[in-house]
Amino acid sequence: MRNWLLPEFIEDVLPAEAGRIESFRRQLLDLFQVHGYQYVIPPMLEYMESLITGTGYDLDLATFKVVDQLTGRLMGVRADMTPQAARIDAHMLNHQGVSRLCYAGTVLRTKPDGLARTREPLQLGAELFGHAGIESDLEIQRLMIKSLQLLGLKELHIDFSHVGIFESLIHHAKIDANLEQALFSALQSKDKSAVTSLVSSLDLQIQQAFIKLVELNGDVNILTEAASVLPPFDEIHQALTDLRAIAKHLTDLDVQVGFDLSELRGYHYHSGIVFAAYAHGYAGPIALGGRYDEVGIAFGRARPATGFSLDLRGAVLALSPAQSAKAILAPEGNDMQLISAIDLLRASGQIVIQALPNMRSQIDELNCDRTLELQHGEWCVTPISN
Amino acid sequence: MRNWLLPEFIEDVLPAEAGRIESFRRQLLDLFQVHGYQYVIPPMLEYMESLITGTGYDLDLATFKVVDQLTGRLMGVRADMTPQAARIDAHMLNHQGVSRLCYAGTVLRTKPDGLARTREPLQLGAELFGHAGIESDLEIQRLMIKSLQLLGLKELHIDFSHVGIFESLIHHAKIDANLEQALFSALQSKDKSAVTSLVSSLDLQIQQAFIKLVELNGDVNILTEAASVLPPFDEIHQALTDLRAIAKHLTDLDVQVGFDLSELRGYHYHSGIVFAAYAHGYAGPIALGGRYDEVGIAFGRARPATGFSLDLRGAVLALSPAQSAKAILAPEGNDMQLISAIDLLRASGQIVIQALPNMRSQIDELNCDRTLELQHGEWCVTPISN
Repeated sequence: MRNWLLPEFIEDVLPAEAGRIESFRRQLLDLFQVHGYQYVIPPMLEYMESLITGTGYDLDLATFKVVDQLTGRLMGVRADMTPQAARIDAHMLNHQGVSRLCYAGTVLRTKPDGLARTREPLQLGAELFGHAGIESDLEIQRLMIKSLQLLGLKELHIDFSHVGIFESLIHHAKIDANLEQALFSALQSKDKSAVTSLVSSLDLQIQQAFIKLVELNGDVNILTEAASVLPPFDEIHQALTDLRAIAKHLTDLDVQVGFDLSELRGYHYHSGIVFAAYAHGYAGPIALGGRYDEVGIAFGRARPATGFSLDLRGAVLALSPAQSAKAILAPEGNDMQLISAIDLLRASGQIVIQALPNMRSQIDELNCDRTLELQHGEWCVTPISN
Repeated sequence: MRNWLLPEFIEDVLPAEAGRIESFRRQLLDLFQVHGYQYVIPPMLEYMESLITGTGYDLDLATFKVVDQLTGRLMGVRADMTPQAARIDAHMLNHQGVSRLCYAGTVLRTKPDGLARTREPLQLGAELFGHAGIESDLEIQRLMIKSLQLLGLKELHIDFSHVGIFESLIHHAKIDANLEQALFSALQSKDKSAVTSLVSSLDLQIQQAFIKLVELNGDVNILTEAASVLPPFDEIHQALTDLRAIAKHLTDLDVQVGFDLSELRGYHYHSGIVFAAYAHGYAGPIALGGRYDEVGIAFGRARPATGFSLDLRGAVLALSPAQSAKAILAPEGNDMQLISAIDLLRASGQIVIQALPNMRSQIDELNCDRTLELQHGEWCVTPISN
């Protein structure tokens, strides 16, 4: 039996990678902080009802369940931190105005979802509660773009959509939950023939709208096309107006903006503009976000909400490899002068490894490029010559 | 149904506390780093066999189990990261000499154990593999003491013991596993009468040794007493010699050193010197550590090992409350000059919150003490007058 084998899609992160993840984790949280987003630490475990309320079936399936030995109730290990932030906003902070929250933590998923190669993403995100206008959507989108630029990602592309278009068509055509789910799935896989057959019994205008939706992706010009081919419902008009405003306001950032009106990622809890970020070297989206005004209702307090999150593990994996910082090897001993020389170097941020008895032979493994040596009564740092 | 209620011993950490935990997390990891300890990120989930191998029954009971939907095998959510570090040392790094590893992560426990008031400790620790001498024990102990001093803890007291004493008595008296477990429990609760009745059928010298063990706690002088009342077995002599060396070498640090020879915390995987740190304001131990040379065997590679860990959540809770940093409130708008003034302030580490439309009334909640205002064509930071 090989006890050290890990489950599939579960991995250790070793020093070089781990150091880089930690560095970016700090830089991102600092970026969130100077934008006014306050760091919170939601728990890994909650009762199932609070973890998945208002979020739909997908999250339920993705969540590992355990029994609470203190109460016998079913708990889940969080698979997404966004609903936790909504719960904290609704009940712990109880702000009347705007709350800005951020978080960084491990989430677990029963299966690797889609393109993610891990069941243990390191989710970092920022969420803005209490403001319903396009300005808060833009604030979140700009923060996401700055975050991805901080990671050094190239050729950023943000794809936008608006859940309101699909919802409006469902609502006006009085489509039931089963057909809604089937249509949703067919649209997500851009399966035009499946969409066509699913809508065949509906009103002709609605039929054509759903079929057209599959093709409405591209640059800002498809918004004009959408306005001409989709029904003139108020919600659709508003959604297209909002998307046009987004396109106009992100022009100063070095990103490509696109639209894909059938894309409804996270539809089950999103309610307005949704978006996904792509970058060179990544097969799938690197960050996801959008508006989810409805989630707070489940916690007894409806609050407008928008936010984004990314998996820092996945994001870092595609970057070029990191170099570990080199260390200084100090001799063994408790001599006060030696100890204070070591303390001084460490206080200045240098890595100093003090030798242990009978361990000289494995010096290579310690990743040292300098030694601390006594020269003319002074402790000096000297390069190791090869 | 109140969806926002959390399970017992599970809590959110809100901004002020979370910010302080994050700050100490960084400072401690930086301290570990300059001492040559490399940061690793072990997974939250492993197969049960690898999580608890060599660690004993306690850890098994403390571990939440879930079924791997990809294989049907039983996995556990980690309840302790020390065995994970040992696995990484044994199999991932494969060093011949010394490895120094550190980690920081959430662990979950089925029940709050003993004095801990949480089922979700934030475990930070440092582990040293590949060296069996007292020098590596001392290195780890000094690092633990520096860590606790960094947290600002007062009146530090470290209690030492040595698993070798108990093991030696068990071994020489050929005590079976059932009696061993019963004796272990009785000693942990310092229950002298229970110990007395359990050992009544044993050799008189062994009887007296076990009974004496309950009382052998105090300052360095009890080591002399122990040498006179315990049997003259080699392992006991070595254990007492090691403990005396420890006491001698920690005198330069501002800590009180004590000994409690019946204390065997973590006995199931420890194998030599063990220790627990206490501080003013904390009911239970704030950090634990010790030698566990046997754990690597379970992963196919026996390696000497010593380390310590602490629960940063618990450690921070007893400190005096933190103050959140105050923010600057900037007006809404996309004016290039305004945006670049905001960017400049944020780049210098200032928190700047840009106003959102129709949200002026809740200014108190934003924790701002300054505003960004246009004065004579320049954007200036101005204190908010009450």
